[in-house]
Amino acid sequence: MGQLLVTHAEIAAARAALPVVVRRTPILPLAESSFDAGCDVRLKCENLQVTGSYKVRASFAAMNAMPVEARSRGAALSSSGNFAAAFAYAGRYMRVPATLVMMEKTSPFKVEKTRKYGGEVVFCENRYEARFETLEQLHQTRGLSVVNHLHDPSVIAGHGTIGLEIIEDWQDVQVILVPVSTGGLLAGVATAVKSLKPTVKVIGVQPDGSNAAALSFRQGEIVRIEQVSTICDALTATAPGPLPWEHVRTYVDGIVTVSDEAVVEAMVHLFEHAKLVVEPAGAVALAAVRAGKLKFPGQKVVAVASGGNVDPARFAEWLAAGRQQAQP
Amino acid sequence: MGQLLVTHAEIAAARAALPVVVRRTPILPLAESSFDAGCDVRLKCENLQVTGSYKVRASFAAMNAMPVEARSRGAALSSSGNFAAAFAYAGRYMRVPATLVMMEKTSPFKVEKTRKYGGEVVFCENRYEARFETLEQLHQTRGLSVVNHLHDPSVIAGHGTIGLEIIEDWQDVQVILVPVSTGGLLAGVATAVKSLKPTVKVIGVQPDGSNAAALSFRQGEIVRIEQVSTICDALTATAPGPLPWEHVRTYVDGIVTVSDEAVVEAMVHLFEHAKLVVEPAGAVALAAVRAGKLKFPGQKVVAVASGGNVDPARFAEWLAAGRQQAQP
Repeated sequence: MGQLLVTHAEIAAARAALPVVVRRTPILPLAESSFDAGCDVRLKCENLQVTGSYKVRASFAAMNAMPVEARSRGAALSSSGNFAAAFAYAGRYMRVPATLVMMEKTSPFKVEKTRKYGGEVVFCENRYEARFETLEQLHQTRGLSVVNHLHDPSVIAGHGTIGLEIIEDWQDVQVILVPVSTGGLLAGVATAVKSLKPTVKVIGVQPDGSNAAALSFRQGEIVRIEQVSTICDALTATAPGPLPWEHVRTYVDGIVTVSDEAVVEAMVHLFEHAKLVVEPAGAVALAAVRAGKLKFPGQKVVAVASGGNVDPARFAEWLAAGRQQAQP
Repeated sequence: MGQLLVTHAEIAAARAALPVVVRRTPILPLAESSFDAGCDVRLKCENLQVTGSYKVRASFAAMNAMPVEARSRGAALSSSGNFAAAFAYAGRYMRVPATLVMMEKTSPFKVEKTRKYGGEVVFCENRYEARFETLEQLHQTRGLSVVNHLHDPSVIAGHGTIGLEIIEDWQDVQVILVPVSTGGLLAGVATAVKSLKPTVKVIGVQPDGSNAAALSFRQGEIVRIEQVSTICDALTATAPGPLPWEHVRTYVDGIVTVSDEAVVEAMVHLFEHAKLVVEPAGAVALAAVRAGKLKFPGQKVVAVASGGNVDPARFAEWLAAGRQQAQP
């Protein structure tokens, strides 16, 4: 309340400053056949983004917002995985040493990816808040600039570039579904979309087992949950971020939740019918439609597929399990 | 020899007659990071085509070439799977009853897909030539128009539309790699590409265990092989088709072969790094680069990913096996 919201102009400026390596990802049909789909749902394919997730947009936006003299000292953020890899990538590209705080339980697959791009990984204990305590230490002891995505407007501006692209690339779109953790992606997309085309509905989707933003939306104020349980390892926030929340309460039309089973079903569907690899967090938006949580008969819907960084061995298990469920 | 070759004008006309459901598939980077790739290889994503393979282009081209009065009696062709599904789809769209001759050993996954689109499946014994004998019977007994892709110019014209799109969408392309079975796709792409930009190299790729076109290219005449053994179930021709062959010998720069192991490695790479699902036949072109069979340092290369129709259970096995091989 009272905090200044990120504007369309700031999102447009963030986009203008993105380097060419950030891809304008395609919006693809999610069925191999136009006979298959009940309504016209398409995927905004951030799984095809460089580094395999949308987080690279905010990573560059945040580094672009840093004072030039601070860049050589380095920057730090905490992440469940995708933001870490993307930030490391952006740091390597912009010659900003990147330090990533990750919980000890983080998928080795995502840790490895972060290191591959030259990021320094600092582990912290398996508490969401421990991430921010460790960041503060890094700031105090090493003078690193900390990007705190719970408060940083450049993160929202960076993610908002996805909203601009959706509206420009599919002018008839009527509904946009967005995965939610702290709410930064939802905040950015909703702000961009509502500023350009207020009639387009923007709806958030969370896992049943990680529903802090959904509860907050229902209560009308930030709700913190005690624990989180979901296969969506990129959607584990125990509360929406304060700055994203201000945008969400201002611009967003609703937030729904889906079961992990529905997420697996959506991932397998995307594999079989869209020929796309999407990670659990990236499949929640489609899962909400396929599980009947949201119905948009005859409407034009975009589901944001936020990422595709999934351990192949785990995916193989889901693929096998999902097919067994799907068959009679 | 002496047979008239399909021309650029015929390919352009075939494209003009394609319905809007046929997608202009994107050309996508095959690495999640620009740091990953040794040279600039991109994928022409016909796995994202409607019906999950490029065959729908030739299916519509062939039906468009049928006399209107013959359409209601129906059309037939033989296929290892993808062409069957695509032809059924086109038939449903154009209201031409489609009959598909498939060998008994055909993957149930591909049979099911063909039936889903309303195609009538007629099985024949597991001999490549039995397919054409059965087609002839269907023509004699039921008056069906037979599309024989070994001789039909409309098939080559339809597939050639892919070549037009590649040259238009990536004007700097220098090399195009194409999977080969009877050679229809290679013939169409090479004809389109060489007519627009003769300096672009067009090279075919076959599995080691199904190398009839590669042997033919080396010998300078059609070579028939006794048997075929490969996981690439869409690349099982025992000889190049006579009409495709005339185009291949005229326009193509070379044909190489790759092992099934290299194909699995390429499929797993595409899963992990491009977030794309590609079937074995669709991965041979990339496999040739990754296995070092072809080297194009610093060049701009398109690998045609011809399809993505793969049984999820089998894919899960390859994913698990491929990861084990890939890790130390």
